[in-house]
Amino acid sequence: MSAYFERLAQAIQNNRSHLCVGLDLQPEQMPEGVWRDTDGFVQFGRSIVEATSDLVCAYKPNLAFYEEMGGGGHHTLRKVLEAIPASIPVIADGKRADIGNTSRAYARALFDRMGFDAATVNPYLGYDALEPFFEYADCGCYILCLTSNSGAADFQIPNSLYLEVAHKATGWNKNGNLGLVVGATQPERIAEIRRAAPDLPFLVPGVGAQGGDLEACVRAAANSRPDQGFIINAARSVLYASSGDDYVQAARREAEKLRDQIEQVLSTIA
Amino acid sequence: MSAYFERLAQAIQNNRSHLCVGLDLQPEQMPEGVWRDTDGFVQFGRSIVEATSDLVCAYKPNLAFYEEMGGGGHHTLRKVLEAIPASIPVIADGKRADIGNTSRAYARALFDRMGFDAATVNPYLGYDALEPFFEYADCGCYILCLTSNSGAADFQIPNSLYLEVAHKATGWNKNGNLGLVVGATQPERIAEIRRAAPDLPFLVPGVGAQGGDLEACVRAAANSRPDQGFIINAARSVLYASSGDDYVQAARREAEKLRDQIEQVLSTIA
Repeated sequence: MSAYFERLAQAIQNNRSHLCVGLDLQPEQMPEGVWRDTDGFVQFGRSIVEATSDLVCAYKPNLAFYEEMGGGGHHTLRKVLEAIPASIPVIADGKRADIGNTSRAYARALFDRMGFDAATVNPYLGYDALEPFFEYADCGCYILCLTSNSGAADFQIPNSLYLEVAHKATGWNKNGNLGLVVGATQPERIAEIRRAAPDLPFLVPGVGAQGGDLEACVRAAANSRPDQGFIINAARSVLYASSGDDYVQAARREAEKLRDQIEQVLSTIA
Repeated sequence: MSAYFERLAQAIQNNRSHLCVGLDLQPEQMPEGVWRDTDGFVQFGRSIVEATSDLVCAYKPNLAFYEEMGGGGHHTLRKVLEAIPASIPVIADGKRADIGNTSRAYARALFDRMGFDAATVNPYLGYDALEPFFEYADCGCYILCLTSNSGAADFQIPNSLYLEVAHKATGWNKNGNLGLVVGATQPERIAEIRRAAPDLPFLVPGVGAQGGDLEACVRAAANSRPDQGFIINAARSVLYASSGDDYVQAARREAEKLRDQIEQVLSTIA
């Protein structure tokens, strides 16, 4: 098991939590009192981290929202990351992939420059496009397998491409640092992927705002290693739980609720 | 035809060129005299643009290399883009895709914030993940179809997924603003994709450093509209044509040579 998944397992144990909070700062969704500028976004992001860091096992900023901020996005992301305790690993959600030397630049940007502990990658370009990420043996890589959106039906589901990705990922996992992104909206397919890749950890987004069924997801995603079989990501439902001045307390309440719901389901199958 | 492809056709005519130069600034490949800092990279990028802007139909910076620069990358990219004449369209090569509201953030970042004329996108997540890009009717979107690396054999080629992408892209092209990324290393498959998508413009990377056969590519990619059937991208072979003080002249010579080779082949099939 790679250093990343060991740290993740430790955070899961420490906080008795399989919840990952997506730090997706969307200007148009911010509570009323938050300034619509870099300072405001930094303060919002940091206050969400401070309110939830004893309730989560990981954080996952989606890079798109920081890129949308333009030149200030890089600084905003850095300042939000600084607020995260060293015991909580952080996943860069960028779904990157490109040909060899270009993927190497992405991997360096995320792991060396920014210090992320893990990253999401897109499998369309195949093994050599992902290898520069996999080579960071201490870091984690979550490969997109089945996504939670309707477009999953375009290419992922025909010919069971998502299962082929799961099979190939199992074979690629020489450093024990790979996982799969498995969307929450189709629990019966999560179970199929679990059978195809019994040992790979899952990152499951799509619970909450995207409507995935939490209990069904947990049952389908769990494997024989409950400390690291899966993590579930929630973003909007936590960050924007309240549009008023109580957004920090509301985010904490929502994160606690989700955490407890997940642990409750797990306790019935352990 | 979208405003982007009209502008591209105009640039192709004006410069009698189907050559796109990839502005992929790689610190470790820079000629000896270039300072390894933001000022040096900006100066290098701008001098390449100034030396080639009458020889190309488009420029294509790959975002990975600017991200690798950390906080200075955004500034570097902006300063290089400023040197590009308004008559030459610029393609953001980021191969982005994510679920709906996240892809929207990426599209805004590239088209609204940075002012790119076109972008490359990854089809794995399907239609609704790409729609936020397609909706920018005046901008172009090149969908990854067949890539030039060995990993294309992992998922793109089995079950002819690349042809399915070409078919679907044709159906999605309501705004006339879509094209395909078709790697140069397999000319016989380019011909297949051309038959599957006779009207879609191709962006063909992989000539030069990656070893694609230029003549075979041009013959396979051309369609009945020679002004816009395809463009061919070269990056390393132009930017790093010389590691000495004459890198500007060497880049111009290499770009001119590639342009003329492409036009020569086209003249025999027009």
